[in-house]
Amino acid sequence: MTEITDRDSALFEAGIKLGALYHQFVGSPVSPDTAGSLERAIQNSISLQPHVQSITVAIDREMIKSSLNDFGYCELAGKMLDVMATIRYGSALVHAGMRYDEDSDYPMMFVEGIEAR
Amino acid sequence: MTEITDRDSALFEAGIKLGALYHQFVGSPVSPDTAGSLERAIQNSISLQPHVQSITVAIDREMIKSSLNDFGYCELAGKMLDVMATIRYGSALVHAGMRYDEDSDYPMMFVEGIEAR
Amino acid sequence: MTEITDRDSALFEAGIKLGALYHQFVGSPVSPDTAGSLERAIQNSISLQPHVQSITVAIDREMIKSSLNDFGYCELAGKMLDVMATIRYGSALVHAGMRYDEDSDYPMMFVEGIEAR
Amino acid sequence: MTEITDRDSALFEAGIKLGALYHQFVGSPVSPDTAGSLERAIQNSISLQPHVQSITVAIDREMIKSSLNDFGYCELAGKMLDVMATIRYGSALVHAGMRYDEDSDYPMMFVEGIEAR
Repeated sequence: MTEITDRDSALFEAGIKLGALYHQFVGSPVSPDTAGSLERAIQNSISLQPHVQSITVAIDREMIKSSLNDFGYCELAGKMLDVMATIRYGSALVHAGMRYDEDSDYPMMFVEGIEAR
Repeated sequence: MTEITDRDSALFEAGIKLGALYHQFVGSPVSPDTAGSLERAIQNSISLQPHVQSITVAIDREMIKSSLNDFGYCELAGKMLDVMATIRYGSALVHAGMRYDEDSDYPMMFVEGIEAR
Repeated sequence: MTEITDRDSALFEAGIKLGALYHQFVGSPVSPDTAGSLERAIQNSISLQPHVQSITVAIDREMIKSSLNDFGYCELAGKMLDVMATIRYGSALVHAGMRYDEDSDYPMMFVEGIEAR
Repeated sequence: MTEITDRDSALFEAGIKLGALYHQFVGSPVSPDTAGSLERAIQNSISLQPHVQSITVAIDREMIKSSLNDFGYCELAGKMLDVMATIRYGSALVHAGMRYDEDSDYPMMFVEGIEAR
């Protein structure tokens, strides 16, 4: 076992936020007209969690349009989400996000960069 | 077994919307500052579902304030929700909602009125 | 406005349970091997809610298999659910459920029958 | 910016699992009698996610009992969860979990140990 650094904690916290966002909001009814208010609510909600310095959430309008049911809406799916978040923990800063990966047809979560002294 | 009327269907649909709203959004991080955007997102999201004529969602700011954790936010709880929805199915109109009931300390869902020919 | 009967309330309560079940559990990771334990947990969980006399939940194994991602699992989708519930409210009994409708490609909720004096 | 190591990725993945678990299942109706089947379903569900080597989920029966509503159940709350998971990513192993912290009255997620070469 080794000591847990700020860098470790920042990465752990970044994962928590993305997992939380995904499983809290996926399944919400959404349409092109309401996607904007859902994006804002998700951003505002997740930015309250500890160590979130900033977060942006974009929902893919084209995927919404191609997923509409007979009633004119669909459910928010992980694949529709494009998220970038910056997490600060002590001296460490982590840039992480989620984006649809076409090759694996999977909403991939990733670490884009780490700044740590 | 008896025939299923528009009135029956409107009541069934009203229940679906309230159950959906509750279990989709309860647990979302919320604070007094972000409650407004969450209210709008919930309203917009649920109004997309079939047969919803109108819906208003209010989140109790005082309950939020008294539930804040050390990090300055709390999770949306059923008790914080005051919802009124009008559901139309064919010739029937149902007014239904959800409101905190102090006596039972329970977020009670209720039918307020039915208009059916 | 008219009086609210037991029949009305039973239909309203039936809708609540189906909406709750759907939006609580859709999105859960699931595979053919774990579908059984998820079915039991959903049944047990929703049968605790007021007025539920019985409920059965079946998750479509074939749909799971055809939805598996590169990691060998998928997320529970509404379309995979086959639910039948009996709701009792006073003198009224409602049989309602949810089942995938191929024509509309939609997880349809429906009232199958009402017994009310 | 620095290189992303297996250790970094394992910590990130550990956070994802805990955030996902929390926001997927919190809110589920639960009682002392059904807690066991919910524990198993959560364990089975989250162990499907990538990089989970093992996970145990315990729901606090005493907290359930003290939270029961007039209908004899309550909703799964974060505070009731005691979770330990081992996440493997390449050469790195992370032991992480979630446990109620009485001092802050908060369901705290934590890294217990890291094994990395």
